[in-house]
Amino acid sequence: MIIPVELGKYSYDIVMERGASRRAVEIFNLHRKGMLGADENVPPARVKDVAASCREVHIFTVRGGEAAKNLAVFEQISASMLKNGFDRGDCVLALGGGVTGDLAGFVAACYMRGVDFYNIPTTLLAQVDSSIGGKTAVDLGGIKNIIGAFHQPRGVIVDQELLASLDQRQMACGAAEIIKIAAALDEELLALIEEKGIAASLAEATARAIRLKAGVIEKDEKEGGLRRVLNFGHTLGHGIEAVTGLFHGECVALGMLPMSGEALRARLTKILAREGLPVSCRAEAAKVVEAAMHDKKARQETIITVQVKKAGEFEFVPLDREGLLRAYNEVFA
Amino acid sequence: MIIPVELGKYSYDIVMERGASRRAVEIFNLHRKGMLGADENVPPARVKDVAASCREVHIFTVRGGEAAKNLAVFEQISASMLKNGFDRGDCVLALGGGVTGDLAGFVAACYMRGVDFYNIPTTLLAQVDSSIGGKTAVDLGGIKNIIGAFHQPRGVIVDQELLASLDQRQMACGAAEIIKIAAALDEELLALIEEKGIAASLAEATARAIRLKAGVIEKDEKEGGLRRVLNFGHTLGHGIEAVTGLFHGECVALGMLPMSGEALRARLTKILAREGLPVSCRAEAAKVVEAAMHDKKARQETIITVQVKKAGEFEFVPLDREGLLRAYNEVFA
Repeated sequence: MIIPVELGKYSYDIVMERGASRRAVEIFNLHRKGMLGADENVPPARVKDVAASCREVHIFTVRGGEAAKNLAVFEQISASMLKNGFDRGDCVLALGGGVTGDLAGFVAACYMRGVDFYNIPTTLLAQVDSSIGGKTAVDLGGIKNIIGAFHQPRGVIVDQELLASLDQRQMACGAAEIIKIAAALDEELLALIEEKGIAASLAEATARAIRLKAGVIEKDEKEGGLRRVLNFGHTLGHGIEAVTGLFHGECVALGMLPMSGEALRARLTKILAREGLPVSCRAEAAKVVEAAMHDKKARQETIITVQVKKAGEFEFVPLDREGLLRAYNEVFA
Repeated sequence: MIIPVELGKYSYDIVMERGASRRAVEIFNLHRKGMLGADENVPPARVKDVAASCREVHIFTVRGGEAAKNLAVFEQISASMLKNGFDRGDCVLALGGGVTGDLAGFVAACYMRGVDFYNIPTTLLAQVDSSIGGKTAVDLGGIKNIIGAFHQPRGVIVDQELLASLDQRQMACGAAEIIKIAAALDEELLALIEEKGIAASLAEATARAIRLKAGVIEKDEKEGGLRRVLNFGHTLGHGIEAVTGLFHGECVALGMLPMSGEALRARLTKILAREGLPVSCRAEAAKVVEAAMHDKKARQETIITVQVKKAGEFEFVPLDREGLLRAYNEVFA
């Protein structure tokens, strides 16, 4: 299946097909040098498949999760490209989760002011969320994604065979983002997940979630307005993440509950719990809100939150510290 | 005088007027935090004028010329913005030459994936060349501009009062870029310079050069084609710069001569010499060409050079090592 993302001259296709990552040579233009950023957790055989697709390949192994998303590693990869004679016509590929894609994508965005970037996300979370939309970044001073660029990929392969090596907790984190987009934008998809669960509807739910996100990006490439809807669950979610150290998807799951209308919250609680996601949180409210206000999306004294009264019906509501505390306590206190 | 640069939603105005830098508060939107990158060579009173225009200002002094254009300084400025609570709605300003503009512009391009950037170039070279077109960058491993982005400014002020503190050699370097664009694109402007010299025609020559460059950028924002014309004199020029350490404008002056038709070359030699620019070069041809081939614009074994047979009539000609050697030796051996 091909899911086109229409962004004028930055348009590209997402190719979703089992086994497609082994056919990268047919899908991407790899008759040139490629710098392949490969997550250390991806099985070596998979890295080999992709590497073999490039005319000339250099591999950079991304180690240590979020900690690898910094300017020092960014400089190392760029320097290696320079040393190996990469020019504007060459390319960068990512094979890994969100960290690998964000880092490699930012290298591609800046090397000689931009070279082509191809992404093969290997986690469900990256397949349905971070690989779509062109956001690339590294962290700075412990704060996520402070330094980055919008740089659309030239192509993305979503290959569900790659998910075989993920554990249940990682799959649940991807499920959380699918549920997020369904709750905010597509009542039908939420009903499907409610009926069958993510595992039994994986291909369909993934494809629909990707289409929904691509549709939002097409309308608002650089987060000027509508794209904020994708932050549903993310304001308090980021605060919870900073305080508890739970996984991102788990925190998004929790973050949605205080921002949902009562009936939707009851539905989400059941759906999330069945996927193995947390639905209660004992983190101290004041600390969570403090961390949320420090998040980079915070301007002045209020944060624009995404509230979903009924599945598919969202609105943007600015909340101050007090408002966030009240929302959090109402659900978790 | 206002020179509009039409780039769709990235359009902006270049305000060219003596004393305009003292009225930045009226011209730019500075009712917010501003990080001001100020060249150490700009007189303190000028820095104070601009700083006073911002609601809240933080100043970063750019020291050491080209050496300051690196990722470590980039990180320092970004970290200072983070520490001081800059968010997406704040801005970065540059007050200085090309180095300051490139560095501050790249910070603006990447901080939170892009904040507004305002540029007040203080050298003739930056006023007619580097401040126009949205190219931002830092150097890597001793190679210029390897890491960068296209990030258009929101506004530019060209204030010729700021040129008062420049020495003759710096003025000549700016003159070289004006002569370059005149030779490649505007026979009339070249004739004007030929008749009066740059000093006597400074305001008119600057305004026309800016308009010409803006016109090229409007047609080719990201250097896919036409924009290459701006590289006239730059291929061998970069090689000469790497080998001799002469100033950039001086090397562009030299680099144009082997790429010009015979009659034009004779005209340019007189014009350049009168502006105090070099017209002969004793650097070893093989070294110059080697350095030119290493320049980041080099792909494979040939370089696309800009040749100007007659003023205003340019063409793109791919040359290999041999071709470059021959051209260089024909003029300088």
